[in-house]
Amino acid sequence: MGKKIFIYDTTLRDGSQMKGINFSVEDKLRIVKELDKMEIDYIECGWPGSNPKDEEFFKLIKLTKMNHSKIAAFGSTRHPKNRVEDDVNIKKLIEAETDVVTIFGKTWDLHVEKALGITLEENLILIEDSIKYLKENVKEVFFDAEHFFDGYKSNPEYALKVLKAAEKGGADIIVLADTNGGSLYYEIAEIIDEIKKVIKTPFGIHAHNDSGLANANSIEAVRKGGIQIQGTINGYGERCGNANLCEIIPNLMIKMGYDVIGDKLTKITKLSRFVSEISNRSQAENMPYVGGNAFGHKGGIHVSAIMKDTHTYEHIEPEKVGNKRNVLVSDLSGKSNILYKANELGIKLDKNDNVVKEVIKAIKSLENQGYEFEGADGSFELLLKKAMKQRKYFFDLISFRMIIERTELNKMISEATIKLDVDGKETHTVSEGDGPVNALDAALRKALLPHYPQIKDMELVDYKVRVLNGKDGTAAKVRVLIETVDKLTGERWGTVGVSENIIKASWEALIDSVEYYLNN
Amino acid sequence: MGKKIFIYDTTLRDGSQMKGINFSVEDKLRIVKELDKMEIDYIECGWPGSNPKDEEFFKLIKLTKMNHSKIAAFGSTRHPKNRVEDDVNIKKLIEAETDVVTIFGKTWDLHVEKALGITLEENLILIEDSIKYLKENVKEVFFDAEHFFDGYKSNPEYALKVLKAAEKGGADIIVLADTNGGSLYYEIAEIIDEIKKVIKTPFGIHAHNDSGLANANSIEAVRKGGIQIQGTINGYGERCGNANLCEIIPNLMIKMGYDVIGDKLTKITKLSRFVSEISNRSQAENMPYVGGNAFGHKGGIHVSAIMKDTHTYEHIEPEKVGNKRNVLVSDLSGKSNILYKANELGIKLDKNDNVVKEVIKAIKSLENQGYEFEGADGSFELLLKKAMKQRKYFFDLISFRMIIERTELNKMISEATIKLDVDGKETHTVSEGDGPVNALDAALRKALLPHYPQIKDMELVDYKVRVLNGKDGTAAKVRVLIETVDKLTGERWGTVGVSENIIKASWEALIDSVEYYLNN
Repeated sequence: MGKKIFIYDTTLRDGSQMKGINFSVEDKLRIVKELDKMEIDYIECGWPGSNPKDEEFFKLIKLTKMNHSKIAAFGSTRHPKNRVEDDVNIKKLIEAETDVVTIFGKTWDLHVEKALGITLEENLILIEDSIKYLKENVKEVFFDAEHFFDGYKSNPEYALKVLKAAEKGGADIIVLADTNGGSLYYEIAEIIDEIKKVIKTPFGIHAHNDSGLANANSIEAVRKGGIQIQGTINGYGERCGNANLCEIIPNLMIKMGYDVIGDKLTKITKLSRFVSEISNRSQAENMPYVGGNAFGHKGGIHVSAIMKDTHTYEHIEPEKVGNKRNVLVSDLSGKSNILYKANELGIKLDKNDNVVKEVIKAIKSLENQGYEFEGADGSFELLLKKAMKQRKYFFDLISFRMIIERTELNKMISEATIKLDVDGKETHTVSEGDGPVNALDAALRKALLPHYPQIKDMELVDYKVRVLNGKDGTAAKVRVLIETVDKLTGERWGTVGVSENIIKASWEALIDSVEYYLNN
Repeated sequence: MGKKIFIYDTTLRDGSQMKGINFSVEDKLRIVKELDKMEIDYIECGWPGSNPKDEEFFKLIKLTKMNHSKIAAFGSTRHPKNRVEDDVNIKKLIEAETDVVTIFGKTWDLHVEKALGITLEENLILIEDSIKYLKENVKEVFFDAEHFFDGYKSNPEYALKVLKAAEKGGADIIVLADTNGGSLYYEIAEIIDEIKKVIKTPFGIHAHNDSGLANANSIEAVRKGGIQIQGTINGYGERCGNANLCEIIPNLMIKMGYDVIGDKLTKITKLSRFVSEISNRSQAENMPYVGGNAFGHKGGIHVSAIMKDTHTYEHIEPEKVGNKRNVLVSDLSGKSNILYKANELGIKLDKNDNVVKEVIKAIKSLENQGYEFEGADGSFELLLKKAMKQRKYFFDLISFRMIIERTELNKMISEATIKLDVDGKETHTVSEGDGPVNALDAALRKALLPHYPQIKDMELVDYKVRVLNGKDGTAAKVRVLIETVDKLTGERWGTVGVSENIIKASWEALIDSVEYYLNN
């Protein structure tokens, strides 16, 4: 086993500063629980002095038993005009009673003078005494040297003085932060060489991705002797984000042989998706290692090659990080793609089968209209069965009508009526709903339940809308993707619909979802 | 001026293999035109032997006069059983009559034997003679050493023999491809040191982002003497994408002082957005340098600091790459954010104004409900004006009704009726549309046009729907963002609406859009 590298997760603090992220206290507690299961060494949860949500969080986390991870509270050095023992922020950090306190201090003379408005000497003093005082009250104290590399480039002597002050104060780890994200990995290497001549305290790295190098910068710091990497799940963070732990941890372990999170690595894809869900964001499909498409193959030649040997187009086995290979069907599909997908769905085809040609033709035509089968395996299987003349039909739509009203009393009503032909019999149902698609779904179920009672075990669990060409304004085509689960077996399937009319697109996806279920 | 580094863009070939990308011939021609304006050195446009779309493209590009860029055709070495002069693929490459032909060849013994099914010796011969033959017929021939780093790690002698064969054949540039994207920058450096002992031909790098290091790998190769970087706009490409030229070019020029695209660098943000639009994809907000949020500031402390000096939280001036700073309003907003935004909108506020507190409170409350003001400056300004008691109202909604029918004859009808109170008078209008929101928009215009004729100059140019919590299925809240343009002045503004009912959410965004216009 290689050297141990400590992971310090700041998803809940630095990550939460990302545009569009808004964690509730409950969200934070749930994420902490998952990070603890992953054996992440440190979890920075927030800034107790800064807002009521974080204060409440720290009260609650005190009562929570952690299995592995240490909780860190983040904050600033004492205010220049306060004595450290009177400083409210420092008090709140201590009151949080966490295993670790991390405070940041300015290392860049520009910031000390312009942003803080104090002298360079005062800054050294308040850094040293803040850390010293915290060390008397907290088990571990880390110092975040903010803007360290820019500070060093601007005034190397002063930047080193700051680190020495932190060392004198007794910091357990000195974290070198590339706060503006502008440094390059080789600059970081050269600068670390210099500081190691002067500083003995173990150090860490806190990189930002403004130059697209947070990953490289983090691992370069470790190659240079750093023992701690600070980052976030999915690289969440301000501007271009923080160092992405979902990329870095697999690099450290699989490529570089370090000891990081042991067998928990196989859960990292799940963790990435979990945090995406809580954050109400789509997981980036192309994220290295953990993205939905990280091991996705489209070109016919690639698919053909990986069917012979997966190493031909995959740098690691996806299972190592809990991810899966997936083969896409598209207009670049060759026979291999269709055979692979059919096999996945348990359908044996011969590559010379006419069905394969027909399906490729259908896919290309539909994709041109905006359909997408990635994420819509259910619709794809129906297409396949249709080409094999094995698709069964269970009902015919005669007509539907949707009425959406905003009444004079400011009430919203959505009502859907559907006429179906089920086994030669006309059924006519109506239902209300929270919105048009919800009403349609409810009316459809009402119509089908008496004939196909098993439908009660189907549950719609995800609904996505994508406007295909927003430039067409409100006349744009939309693509609707629905995900349904069989509550009895847990099986999930996706279905798709496309139209300029969002109701029609939703209807298509809805009936594919039901027909898939009834065909299986 | 530093050393010249050549950029080889493969957005239209390798990039097009990305999931969800589907360039038409017209799309490719438009992108080529923009890349030419940007003075990109080489544009790899496709594979003439591989599909009819590409063949048609190469016929058309022959007739196009380029100002700067050289066009490259991509393809494979000759088929093992063919003589090179009889090989159809090679013929098509020559017929394309491009300035450059790039062919790829296998350097990894695993691939030669398993994927190609030929001997290691045969592979060397067909690489050398394919290049030799092409050099007799084409001005520049580049050799893409596929899977080079994996091939070298597996069998270094053989990988070097392949490069020597390419050199013997007369390749102008040998491109080292990290096809599986699994290499680390320091491995690349070590391997390049070895090959430079043996190969004299200038070399380039073609990196993939499977380990999150395509950017670092590319610039490390250049530091080691490489003169060509292959990549794509926005990092488009299979799995985790290709090296992202929008990150790499600014790194090379601003951070490393190389000579790349001169004053065209200030157009790179625009290029990134243009390619996103043509690809019908959202530009990733957090993309380094060119992303919409690359210079976005949310935390109150950051905003406060950049108002004093922008270097405090920005690694470069956004203007260098044609991007803009933006200040977000959110529940992390401090007074600085509101003041900054108000100032941007031409509204002078004092930081102690009660209005500021009221606006912060309103924003936090609305954001909790799912509203987002980033991208909805129009709605934000209305909020501000309301708090300043300066917002004017031009109409009141009494009621609306939407009817969406799928008739027995399989026709979709969307009809909206609206009752408004305009200046004490009731107006009642109806309109059809391509879908519900389109119908609503049309009916609203019909109602307002007689009273406010200037509305005819407003045009809705973008419509986005985001399901806020897909897990609620069809009952999920949706957020609608609308972008409107004033056709006379070109001014654009965004507005937002949130509801479980997509019609209601769209309605909110629509009326904010009109009210913003009428208030200005």
